[in-house]
Amino acid sequence: MSGNSFGTLLKLTTFGESHGPALGGILEGCPAGLELDVEAIQKELERRKPGQSKIVTQRKEPDQVVFYSGLFEGKTTGTPIGFAIHNTNQKSKDYSHIKDSYRPSHADYVYDKKYGFRDYRGGGRSSARETASRVVGGAIAKQLLPDVKIQAYVSQVGDLGLTKSAEELDLSLVESNPVRCPDPKAAAQMETYIKEIKKQGDTVGGVISCRITGVPVGLGSPVFDKLHARLGAAMLSINAVKGFEYGSGFEGARMKGSQHNDAFNSDGSTQTNHSGGVQGGISNGMDIVFSVAFKPVATLLQPYTTIDSEGNTVETQGKGRHDPCVVPRAVPIVEAMAALVLADFSLLARTDRFDVD
Amino acid sequence: MSGNSFGTLLKLTTFGESHGPALGGILEGCPAGLELDVEAIQKELERRKPGQSKIVTQRKEPDQVVFYSGLFEGKTTGTPIGFAIHNTNQKSKDYSHIKDSYRPSHADYVYDKKYGFRDYRGGGRSSARETASRVVGGAIAKQLLPDVKIQAYVSQVGDLGLTKSAEELDLSLVESNPVRCPDPKAAAQMETYIKEIKKQGDTVGGVISCRITGVPVGLGSPVFDKLHARLGAAMLSINAVKGFEYGSGFEGARMKGSQHNDAFNSDGSTQTNHSGGVQGGISNGMDIVFSVAFKPVATLLQPYTTIDSEGNTVETQGKGRHDPCVVPRAVPIVEAMAALVLADFSLLARTDRFDVD
Amino acid sequence: MSGNSFGTLLKLTTFGESHGPALGGILEGCPAGLELDVEAIQKELERRKPGQSKIVTQRKEPDQVVFYSGLFEGKTTGTPIGFAIHNTNQKSKDYSHIKDSYRPSHADYVYDKKYGFRDYRGGGRSSARETASRVVGGAIAKQLLPDVKIQAYVSQVGDLGLTKSAEELDLSLVESNPVRCPDPKAAAQMETYIKEIKKQGDTVGGVISCRITGVPVGLGSPVFDKLHARLGAAMLSINAVKGFEYGSGFEGARMKGSQHNDAFNSDGSTQTNHSGGVQGGISNGMDIVFSVAFKPVATLLQPYTTIDSEGNTVETQGKGRHDPCVVPRAVPIVEAMAALVLADFSLLARTDRFDVD
Amino acid sequence: MSGNSFGTLLKLTTFGESHGPALGGILEGCPAGLELDVEAIQKELERRKPGQSKIVTQRKEPDQVVFYSGLFEGKTTGTPIGFAIHNTNQKSKDYSHIKDSYRPSHADYVYDKKYGFRDYRGGGRSSARETASRVVGGAIAKQLLPDVKIQAYVSQVGDLGLTKSAEELDLSLVESNPVRCPDPKAAAQMETYIKEIKKQGDTVGGVISCRITGVPVGLGSPVFDKLHARLGAAMLSINAVKGFEYGSGFEGARMKGSQHNDAFNSDGSTQTNHSGGVQGGISNGMDIVFSVAFKPVATLLQPYTTIDSEGNTVETQGKGRHDPCVVPRAVPIVEAMAALVLADFSLLARTDRFDVD
Repeated sequence: MSGNSFGTLLKLTTFGESHGPALGGILEGCPAGLELDVEAIQKELERRKPGQSKIVTQRKEPDQVVFYSGLFEGKTTGTPIGFAIHNTNQKSKDYSHIKDSYRPSHADYVYDKKYGFRDYRGGGRSSARETASRVVGGAIAKQLLPDVKIQAYVSQVGDLGLTKSAEELDLSLVESNPVRCPDPKAAAQMETYIKEIKKQGDTVGGVISCRITGVPVGLGSPVFDKLHARLGAAMLSINAVKGFEYGSGFEGARMKGSQHNDAFNSDGSTQTNHSGGVQGGISNGMDIVFSVAFKPVATLLQPYTTIDSEGNTVETQGKGRHDPCVVPRAVPIVEAMAALVLADFSLLARTDRFDVD
Repeated sequence: MSGNSFGTLLKLTTFGESHGPALGGILEGCPAGLELDVEAIQKELERRKPGQSKIVTQRKEPDQVVFYSGLFEGKTTGTPIGFAIHNTNQKSKDYSHIKDSYRPSHADYVYDKKYGFRDYRGGGRSSARETASRVVGGAIAKQLLPDVKIQAYVSQVGDLGLTKSAEELDLSLVESNPVRCPDPKAAAQMETYIKEIKKQGDTVGGVISCRITGVPVGLGSPVFDKLHARLGAAMLSINAVKGFEYGSGFEGARMKGSQHNDAFNSDGSTQTNHSGGVQGGISNGMDIVFSVAFKPVATLLQPYTTIDSEGNTVETQGKGRHDPCVVPRAVPIVEAMAALVLADFSLLARTDRFDVD
Repeated sequence: MSGNSFGTLLKLTTFGESHGPALGGILEGCPAGLELDVEAIQKELERRKPGQSKIVTQRKEPDQVVFYSGLFEGKTTGTPIGFAIHNTNQKSKDYSHIKDSYRPSHADYVYDKKYGFRDYRGGGRSSARETASRVVGGAIAKQLLPDVKIQAYVSQVGDLGLTKSAEELDLSLVESNPVRCPDPKAAAQMETYIKEIKKQGDTVGGVISCRITGVPVGLGSPVFDKLHARLGAAMLSINAVKGFEYGSGFEGARMKGSQHNDAFNSDGSTQTNHSGGVQGGISNGMDIVFSVAFKPVATLLQPYTTIDSEGNTVETQGKGRHDPCVVPRAVPIVEAMAALVLADFSLLARTDRFDVD
Repeated sequence: MSGNSFGTLLKLTTFGESHGPALGGILEGCPAGLELDVEAIQKELERRKPGQSKIVTQRKEPDQVVFYSGLFEGKTTGTPIGFAIHNTNQKSKDYSHIKDSYRPSHADYVYDKKYGFRDYRGGGRSSARETASRVVGGAIAKQLLPDVKIQAYVSQVGDLGLTKSAEELDLSLVESNPVRCPDPKAAAQMETYIKEIKKQGDTVGGVISCRITGVPVGLGSPVFDKLHARLGAAMLSINAVKGFEYGSGFEGARMKGSQHNDAFNSDGSTQTNHSGGVQGGISNGMDIVFSVAFKPVATLLQPYTTIDSEGNTVETQGKGRHDPCVVPRAVPIVEAMAALVLADFSLLARTDRFDVD
């Protein structure tokens, strides 16, 4: 299986299924000499972990990261940072009912066809639990970018969406409510709605938006590794994501050039930011802004009809502990992936010029 | 500069600026023994080339590809396919007026900041002319996928959008009009609109949608290299792209799981296709459907105010030969990138199982 | 730090220092459906582990591998195989004397200059302990190659060298003595010599040779990834290796073409094997044969003079538990690296041809 | 076919067969702002090109490089440098006699088995002509390393070997004779010997040694990408190479640690250089010294017996224009590959430390 690594110089490789002994990863390319704030990493894991509020899955996992290598006397040594998060609360029995049947809009069917069989417990490698390793890698990446601030937030749940832009919102309020929406009034409505949905045994989709400030000019690459292409790949690699847009996004397709162009100020900043902080694939020093669409979680706590591996129709019922809406817990994942992209490009940018005096 | 290669096993590396002697690339990993239809490749280049109709740039470039290696007696040998497209109609003088000033919403400013100076003629490496090399690579990739049909089309220009889905449209009509929109009536309206915009010296954005049929189950990878993540990265690496969505896309964020889940038929196909042909990052045998948003071209044939490299305000005027709307010519580019992604994953899928009998 | 991964499709990434909590790795790209013989893996680790005989270091490490992922009901799932080997017997105090001084012919000095500081305990990332992870990866790779037999053996210790070639030796005797030399008489002499050297607090170099049988025609690639170039890179990445040669090797440089050419038999095999099983970088079906030179271990249990980080001369004394001769324990490492190379090329070879019927 | 690229940040990808229209490559990752000395590049090509003296092949190829991209007003722009060398003097007819037969110790047989057929003209992709592209890439890499001096030279032809080490020789004499041996007396003997061998229609092997001065401390990586492992892979990827050793090499295997260890001087330099300039995979500031063994060229201008693709015995006769001894022309190739390795590691070293003030 290809595709377990992310990044060029700062490279995260992850391993692990939700119901094996542990998951974790190796972060390569972290430069030597960074005083690592391990507590800050654990704090990011808490933001992602199950059971943190009433609107997320009630599974209890401590999600405690253990570091195996790459650190000496509190500092990164330049060698690979190996880490693991041990699984402690697997209820594999919850999954025995799907051993021979394919849950709709899950990866069960494609795994069987592709690999010949599958680890049916909890989605195996496709479990969103894999993203815990990304949060660890991303939390280290954040520390490599002390001047950059990455702030993701929930901007939509079902039909309930914010009308204000990132600049108009007070992003310091993101952690003030379990939805992670910076508009307290909208957050309350969203929370109520998610609880309702949960009661129905149903689920709902949503959108996470992100604003990144303090990015220097010059990160990204002009052709295949455009900054926004890597951000897009990063976001689309998160479970349940269906779309990505940055700057003017899909709305930009409706606009004329005379409306869309961002006129320069004399210091190189721009008067508008339809570009979303990226020109020709390279950061231009303005805020990077993008949005990520998440589909509703596929596991419903409702009876449903599906097929088994022989193609027979089976009646079954969703079980287990699942999120009614994935976006509140996905906020730190979006931030982590963005941090990995930016920190990687920061290192690459050190090699842009022959003369580095 | 990183990021000039795309793909893992089938890998395209491109070189070239719009105003240098030539651009081209190397396609590695093409298996041996494919009878290459060189004419079909040239035909794809014709779909992308300037001057093909009245609604695209009037620059005249023959865009003739020359193959240097990797072929013997009409068949691929398994060795790298080197190719070039010589530039013949550069009017570099058209760009002397921007030598010292930064065009709004272009990469001029970020290049100077990143690399210390820039090849200011025609956008240099950031020119959409680079995509000609992708079309060559993609046209070969298409031939590696004889059972797969990739059909992109214009689904929106400015505010003029199609309401029918890919399944409801007759995609055989795409090439029947210069807009490359499969709905003849909408196409006519779009064409009129683009001509109007052009007369104003303005530009307009648009959306390209794509349907891919005949994809086998099992292409893609569960984590970072999800099929849709690679498709997204591919599309976002095309000039002027602002967003990507597949299946239900951003609309899916509004839906409930009970609406969104795709129920199985007994043969493994699904009754709906909100998944867009991809489950957990792996193709499920249904049509792959996605959309790509393009911003309006930044070069306007209007006077505008901007800054020079010293930060002084300068009054200038857009010149050169440019597209009023980029989407008609971007259709083959979208297809080319999709073909590269799918052919690469097809090769990777040969290594999925230990026992390959 | 780059360079913690080895392989293209079958890719091993390792982490870990000798004195951290654990070392381990991630093996990606192992196809699904292989019944993994975990005992066989542990057995390979026993061949590498310290304390196995009187002529190796007396450090006691159980070197027990734990698998975290990638397995389900005894079979590989196609997902990354994460594993760890916990360090249990670190005596970090043994290294406090070198905290501020640079041991001759160790990496201490270059680490300080490169990274600004170093984990001085046991060589950190440069410890040969890292190779335990390679042995795990290689043992899995061996199982991916059921028809291939990889047999490394000690062919020289100091000046004591075998005169017989691999074909003339009975390689089933390799494990019959602690030196891992298949010639019992020579083995006894080598053992005596190593014990003598050890008594002197000195160390000695040696050579490991390897014969690989059962390799199909067609593994390897014609240009940069020649089979022997990858084997060479693999071997030269093992600690203390100073040279690599295959087939006729350095002796071949003395020969004429009329002597060196391997004439064909009618079945495509050759009458001689100066090629060492590789033609133009691709396996030709003959035995692959190569040799690897190891320098004497740098840590002597003798007093010596060196410098500290300020450049002052210091008198010190080698401590710790070290091997007097590295080659007996390096035999399974050579085999592991060879297995990783061959298994990777086996997977790559599945994509050689367009038509795979 | 994998393996057409070399390098991580500074990456050369080559294409081309000896009898196609052109060969060439793309050099990615060359930093912006280097004033490129194009003449110096062409000069390196002259050192490699056929027909330069009486002891090399008499084929006449101008080997003129054309640059397609990556340069603007004489300086590198940071974008990929695309280049081609057009083939002008192919005598493909010289090869029709081998269309259906397999030359001994050539890649003909393995190509047919691997790919199903082959471009039989001049060895196709396996032709040493491919190395012209490496010389171009290496010549640019040399310019990225203004303080480093890479000097390869012929140290052995057949049994005629130098007894002096690199330090004892006057390497400024390398270009003073067609053998490229810095000892004039030995050079004369070697030249006479090669002419004799040529008269017999035979060929002979040889050794190239290399000394690199001015390398800063800190290039290379501790595990798989050890500096000497990358150098070894680079050298073993050159056609006809059978072995690589650095520093004490195979001789080091005979030594005791008490003889082999390089004692430090107070400035961090060492009193001896058995390490060959590399400690633990990382340059230590001493001269890098290594040797590369080349087998005799396989094409003899003598009658020989071999098999055809059906396994029938055929009598044939070597034709074409070939080198009686490959080492004189391989000297610039060795230097080119070494330069690519060092320049790549120089760029990577910019990311070693978090704090780069």
